Amino acid sequence: MIGAPKQADMGFSTIQLSEDGWSVEILDQTLLPHEFKTVRLTTMADAATAIRDMLVRGAPLIGATAAYGMALAMRQDPSSGNLKEAYDRLLETRPTAINLRWALDDMMAVLKDCAEADREEKAYDRAAAVVLEDNEICFGIGEHGLALIREIFEKKGGQGPVNILTHCNAGALATCGLGTATAPVYLAKIDQIPVHVWVDETRPRNQGAALTAWELGRSGIDHSLIADNTGGHLMQHGMVDLCIVGTDRTTATGDVCNKIGTYLKALAAHDNGVPFYVALPSTTIDWTVEDGVREIPIEERAGEEVTQVRGMAADGTIQTVTVPPLSTRAANFAFDVTPARLVTGLITERGVAPATREGLKGLFPEQA
Amino acid sequence: MIGAPKQADMGFSTIQLSEDGWSVEILDQTLLPHEFKTVRLTTMADAATAIRDMLVRGAPLIGATAAYGMALAMRQDPSSGNLKEAYDRLLETRPTAINLRWALDDMMAVLKDCAEADREEKAYDRAAAVVLEDNEICFGIGEHGLALIREIFEKKGGQGPVNILTHCNAGALATCGLGTATAPVYLAKIDQIPVHVWVDETRPRNQGAALTAWELGRSGIDHSLIADNTGGHLMQHGMVDLCIVGTDRTTATGDVCNKIGTYLKALAAHDNGVPFYVALPSTTIDWTVEDGVREIPIEERAGEEVTQVRGMAADGTIQTVTVPPLSTRAANFAFDVTPARLVTGLITERGVAPATREGLKGLFPEQA
Repeated sequence: MIGAPKQADMGFSTIQLSEDGWSVEILDQTLLPHEFKTVRLTTMADAATAIRDMLVRGAPLIGATAAYGMALAMRQDPSSGNLKEAYDRLLETRPTAINLRWALDDMMAVLKDCAEADREEKAYDRAAAVVLEDNEICFGIGEHGLALIREIFEKKGGQGPVNILTHCNAGALATCGLGTATAPVYLAKIDQIPVHVWVDETRPRNQGAALTAWELGRSGIDHSLIADNTGGHLMQHGMVDLCIVGTDRTTATGDVCNKIGTYLKALAAHDNGVPFYVALPSTTIDWTVEDGVREIPIEERAGEEVTQVRGMAADGTIQTVTVPPLSTRAANFAFDVTPARLVTGLITERGVAPATREGLKGLFPEQA
Repeated sequence: MIGAPKQADMGFSTIQLSEDGWSVEILDQTLLPHEFKTVRLTTMADAATAIRDMLVRGAPLIGATAAYGMALAMRQDPSSGNLKEAYDRLLETRPTAINLRWALDDMMAVLKDCAEADREEKAYDRAAAVVLEDNEICFGIGEHGLALIREIFEKKGGQGPVNILTHCNAGALATCGLGTATAPVYLAKIDQIPVHVWVDETRPRNQGAALTAWELGRSGIDHSLIADNTGGHLMQHGMVDLCIVGTDRTTATGDVCNKIGTYLKALAAHDNGVPFYVALPSTTIDWTVEDGVREIPIEERAGEEVTQVRGMAADGTIQTVTVPPLSTRAANFAFDVTPARLVTGLITERGVAPATREGLKGLFPEQA
């Protein structure tokens, strides 16, 4: 896939090997958008912490970080015991992300029958390949999603912009490439199709406000930040042409587990006849799960993520403020499941599939 | 209605005449939950500012404040010119709230044919009556809503708690009494029916986090704060027994214009068979409007309400922080319209009506 735009063209890399050739540099996304800082990972434990504390987030980027975490582990101690230990430690960092497991299984397959002396090199090679492959996957998703945007643009008689609503950050920052949900948007800009993105702020962690707004702004994509409550109103009034969101785990039947609140937007899209697309690398498909609502465990996180908000104060310092009474307790479910019946289509690296078992099997017959 | 619980039993009054007998004391709700401060209104302009800057908010309380604003105007200058001027100035403070107009029309009806010399006294009398009537209306709504809660409690075999989801603050703080959506909750507590309230934080102004959590906490009602994105997930998993929200304007056909995001919760309730009730004083019914989505103008407010969040910093000071990049622009629609088809029932001071023209006419035949 020569010529695929690269993340570095945007002026940042979510993850890359350091100049020393072994440590791993990541962009600390907990500091965005007000601070741009890279962090150097030198141990498997560093990688696990980076995933658990969400310095990196987004299914593909979590996978890539875990892959490099395995490489760092093999550099420290290439024994089979440590290989197993690293696998387990990295797997437990985020319970919902399916391609965390995929990346770890992939690394394990490469490493487990390999001589101890070769494990470090093999691990670094494979981790680098995971990053490269993700960039290509993003480009593939982008091309297939771009066709949908172009179709809407033409249906509107070339009168732009095409208004796209997105939730959370399924952007370049979530991947090693142009993003999943955002890849079609970036390619539309390259193709000079005017787009405007409604960016859900995405409470409680504000990934839309802090990350999606940041990366769209950096690339000069027209966008408006909105409260998560707003999408329904916009769709009632014809102000959204299509929704594109990401997913952390997709079932074999097309149910989509994504950031909490995605389900509400899908309901509104369905109620107003707005196309609702989910962009995903096929690595997020969990072929073992049938019923997303019943079977996918939903991560519960600390209530402080709801009660406390971080941002830049008037004096330029970064402050965390508590919004409700200090005694208020919050419940914090991180994801929800959007049933396949509400999903117009799944945009994958191989094309757009209906959100059904048959649709997915059509694109991925090797999984049948 | 002797024996109706009063707001003052909770230890605060949203609005009351000062000890001087003419100026008006309001609770400055922009400072809640971290500061409890009353503000003294001495002119009509003070009242207009208090409404526009949302020191007072909530349809019934806005109406009461406007009524006292007219009284303050008549104290300053009881001429017919000033009467008209005060009416116009107060009316333009918030475009969506229907019972702002109702309260002002009510005051105008009392004052317009009255001798100038009598206007001040008449205006104060009528404003005081508006406050008292609102307390009684809240109690009526509370009793009818309590019956719904009790029914669910019994259906659950007396195994509590009854889980109620609410959005924004249709609480005591929005009224001169026990609130609208919260009145049934407060009465359930008095009746010893165990309740637990899921409190939507209600972005962008966080009225749920700052106000509803505050007043429920003050009254010892069990509650959990949640991001607005969460309700759909909770309903998918049987964790919500019913929703009760307020409304700023209700159409003659039962459409409900309430805080942005209400529509999304109603969609989720409908999708999961969860009863979705709207509590309202009949003064919020706009008998002239047929189609809420098409006809009700939706207030757009400053984008800074989305980008900036106010709360208590670690050092105990109140700070405002900017979450997205400083250059990010936000769109801020304050309300949305929930179509009547998604509303299980309208809880009014006269009883619970289906959200239909016939349902409303049945309870309010004088409007037919």
